Amino acid sequence: MDVFPLPLARIGIIGGGQLGRMMAKAAKRLGCTCVVLDPTPGSPAGQVAGHQIVGDYHDPAKLRELAESCDVTTFDIEDIDTDTLIQLEREGRRVHPSPKVLALIQDKLTQKQALADAGIATAPFIPMPEPSPEAFAAFGYPLVQKARRGGYDGRGVSIQRTPDDYDQHLPVPSLVERFVPAVKELAVLVARGLDGDCRCYPVVEMCFRPGENVLDMLLAPANIPAATAAAAVKLAERTLEVLGGVGIFGVEMFLTADGELLVNEVAPRTHNSGHHTIEANITDQFEQHLRAVVGLPLGSTDQLSPAAMINLLGAPGHRGRPVVKGMAEALAIPGVCLHLYGKAATAPFRKMGHVTVLDPDLETARHKAERVRDLIEISGEDHP
Amino acid sequence: MDVFPLPLARIGIIGGGQLGRMMAKAAKRLGCTCVVLDPTPGSPAGQVAGHQIVGDYHDPAKLRELAESCDVTTFDIEDIDTDTLIQLEREGRRVHPSPKVLALIQDKLTQKQALADAGIATAPFIPMPEPSPEAFAAFGYPLVQKARRGGYDGRGVSIQRTPDDYDQHLPVPSLVERFVPAVKELAVLVARGLDGDCRCYPVVEMCFRPGENVLDMLLAPANIPAATAAAAVKLAERTLEVLGGVGIFGVEMFLTADGELLVNEVAPRTHNSGHHTIEANITDQFEQHLRAVVGLPLGSTDQLSPAAMINLLGAPGHRGRPVVKGMAEALAIPGVCLHLYGKAATAPFRKMGHVTVLDPDLETARHKAERVRDLIEISGEDHP
Repeated sequence: MDVFPLPLARIGIIGGGQLGRMMAKAAKRLGCTCVVLDPTPGSPAGQVAGHQIVGDYHDPAKLRELAESCDVTTFDIEDIDTDTLIQLEREGRRVHPSPKVLALIQDKLTQKQALADAGIATAPFIPMPEPSPEAFAAFGYPLVQKARRGGYDGRGVSIQRTPDDYDQHLPVPSLVERFVPAVKELAVLVARGLDGDCRCYPVVEMCFRPGENVLDMLLAPANIPAATAAAAVKLAERTLEVLGGVGIFGVEMFLTADGELLVNEVAPRTHNSGHHTIEANITDQFEQHLRAVVGLPLGSTDQLSPAAMINLLGAPGHRGRPVVKGMAEALAIPGVCLHLYGKAATAPFRKMGHVTVLDPDLETARHKAERVRDLIEISGEDHP
Repeated sequence: MDVFPLPLARIGIIGGGQLGRMMAKAAKRLGCTCVVLDPTPGSPAGQVAGHQIVGDYHDPAKLRELAESCDVTTFDIEDIDTDTLIQLEREGRRVHPSPKVLALIQDKLTQKQALADAGIATAPFIPMPEPSPEAFAAFGYPLVQKARRGGYDGRGVSIQRTPDDYDQHLPVPSLVERFVPAVKELAVLVARGLDGDCRCYPVVEMCFRPGENVLDMLLAPANIPAATAAAAVKLAERTLEVLGGVGIFGVEMFLTADGELLVNEVAPRTHNSGHHTIEANITDQFEQHLRAVVGLPLGSTDQLSPAAMINLLGAPGHRGRPVVKGMAEALAIPGVCLHLYGKAATAPFRKMGHVTVLDPDLETARHKAERVRDLIEISGEDHP
């Protein structure tokens, strides 16, 4: 029989954004306490955790302060100083997912090479240490250039359809890959426990606006044949076997016109494609991640209702204290679940919250989510 | 179009227990901030709210400090100084539910008289300012004696089956009512919005152990005929029309062998019979309460899955820092959702947490919940 004095564990969370915020809520109901490391005092996660170390993710002293005061350290961002974390892990500190796995994934080139070496299908790619028009042309258009480091939410990615797009290129060490004309973009959230137990959530469909890389609408489950869904789950599991690590991982994939599945990217953390699991699934991704990293059994990933999810982004041209328009009207729509992140200031396209819509019919959920997107606007008091 | 600068509202919560804790979590996702008033530093709700005023619910100065620093004040307990709250409401402070409604309900005699005067079915009752064997005998056995004030979780209630039970009576101003041999005890959670909109959650069934008054197991939905469920919802709505007030109310009822429904008691707050709504329903009772008190539209009360809920009580004879046994084993059961309340010390029968079990089949959910109850034990480090 297992025996735990409370608190069960003190969890260190590197990064105090919305992912850490939702994680801290889950941590508390599992009997854990939390400490957040984030440079902004009163960060979204810090407001809920109750304890925040104000400091940078790249500051070795602050990372050490966090890890040494906690039983387990995890993160809600990827752009962290892994050298310090690897050293802390060597000293016996528990960090999950392992900073070695994070380091491998942080660099999009080593991530992709690891997958390709293991025979996992991806778009064809090559390293490109010094991007140039000649190198792009040699690889052939259309292509996708990805910065090796620091990209997220579409930053660090440049689609080069023709040589004319070169003024949009990224002047940093990169990889380039073949542009995949995907029919759909899918994602599978995978949880791996300390004991190696592996559980996938139902496959979801990520919709992007043309030309933008920020998730526009998420549909759960994905509207794809059962055989494709089963293949996507299998591919996600194999991907995690290759990469290793404990916790939640988001595996993004392309579904091509030929019905082929290609792994695009892996996120070694809770993921925007899993926010709907808070309401729609038995165990949400944040609790699942914590169950994994503290060594509890993983929970059921069964979905209770179809769901559509949209991000609430700061309106272009607006900054300062957020002002929400249309919130009451949106909340009057049955099935609308609102999550605001408590950020003190808005900025153009900043993620300020999200809305999950539950409905027995996925198409109705999508329509309601579109209506909410039209209704809610997050502007700022400092609008010029 | 509605326009709200963030934070949407600053919510004052009188009482920092588990109900306030779950309310504070809901408040944050709706874009509200919270302040908790509770005598224990680091109370369960204070840990999540991020701001606590340490003070007693009966201290007029502390109640004033809370209400004057908040946009809306509400409560997670009933035993509050209503005189001060009524004065604050007179001065224009927003307090929901109205302290006048709270005062009426706080006194179980005035509560019951208000219901009876409006023609709402209850067990026959009489006031009993000074309990005595003669007065009990005159009313007739079996009877239930209820203290007019201060009772909760079975405290303040004495079942007198025969004159021999007199040593168990309560020597305080009371009412006595006919003991109802109920087939089932039911509860309906009702939400009333600022605009008078009224929404009921599906009827639930509360199971008690013989001789105890603390909820042993909750089943949602109740296993009763549809016509009975519809009648219970109607009765709950009528009860709220009589009492008035804005927010969530728990209406407890008896279902007699004849199929008659009698209102037992009303709680003017979020309620133990609604904890399952966090996972099982689209809008949980805590968010619903907040939507009501800040003037947002009420959410859908639809239930997504059958659910069984048990409280996790401190083991008899144990005090001090809590130690949880069997938690990992319980979490391995599919559908088990754990909520620990972060209380620093356990005590015999203290509510330390709860578990909701979701399962497509209610009987399976109940069996799993029974298994969890057998597995999890909350003992204390100060066990003698």
